[in-house]
Amino acid sequence: MEISPDWVVGFVDGAGCFRVRVRRRPQRTPPYEVIPEFAVIRHRRDIQALYALKRFFGCGVVRPDQGEGYAYRVQRLECLERICEFFLRHPLKTRQNVEMRRLRRMVLLMKAGRQESREGLLEIVEVASRMTAADHEALEEIRRALRAG
Amino acid sequence: MEISPDWVVGFVDGAGCFRVRVRRRPQRTPPYEVIPEFAVIRHRRDIQALYALKRFFGCGVVRPDQGEGYAYRVQRLECLERICEFFLRHPLKTRQNVEMRRLRRMVLLMKAGRQESREGLLEIVEVASRMTAADHEALEEIRRALRAG
Repeated sequence: MEISPDWVVGFVDGAGCFRVRVRRRPQRTPPYEVIPEFAVIRHRRDIQALYALKRFFGCGVVRPDQGEGYAYRVQRLECLERICEFFLRHPLKTRQNVEMRRLRRMVLLMKAGRQESREGLLEIVEVASRMTAADHEALEEIRRALRAG
Repeated sequence: MEISPDWVVGFVDGAGCFRVRVRRRPQRTPPYEVIPEFAVIRHRRDIQALYALKRFFGCGVVRPDQGEGYAYRVQRLECLERICEFFLRHPLKTRQNVEMRRLRRMVLLMKAGRQESREGLLEIVEVASRMTAADHEALEEIRRALRAG
């Protein structure tokens, strides 16, 4: 499947998601991990479009998701940075543009190792909290813990 | 908002829907109407993308939908035909391509007045039944009534 930059922008405007996941890991300090993610989830009949995205960006994975869905997912910081750079050159036309820029801010902070310090992690969580697709309850809990801690 | 043909294809691959609605009208013969429709439904924060599609295709309406959604909808046969012609020149890359072609077949049959005869209406309903986004229960009911009638 041949895809162009404009098609990728349109497809991600229509079906993409820039989001933040929170993974709990009770045995470690801090007891959670904040994970920025870019994902496109489609019915399995459209799996070829997901593989086309994977080839286009040169990274990420295509895996089964809930029900009959498949997801193209990217969590590696270097790859997220590359994807965000693409969307800076080829701007998204919907609200996704704002979400992408917030995700990019998180990614740059994390690439700089800012999550190693409490202030840095708090900064990352603040940016994450402004994203639409995020576990806001978990983020608020983390924020409270960081401020108290 | 400036949009290109490739962006439109990508956006519709990601968020568009070619579907068939069945409207019941008990006082008339036949007591239902089969309505092909092209729709894109988004959160209201992305209403500008819907207006951009409306300008791009030169027809259709943007209206509030459920909850915080807005829909760009096209039901006029001439307009659906124009939209399908566009997607024949600029092919959709997902399953939508198949759905678009089935919708187009329905539209051409209806433009030729085929729904006026029982055989023609049955043919239209058969095509509609092969579409994913359709009220299959209502279509089956119509098919049974037409075959019995």
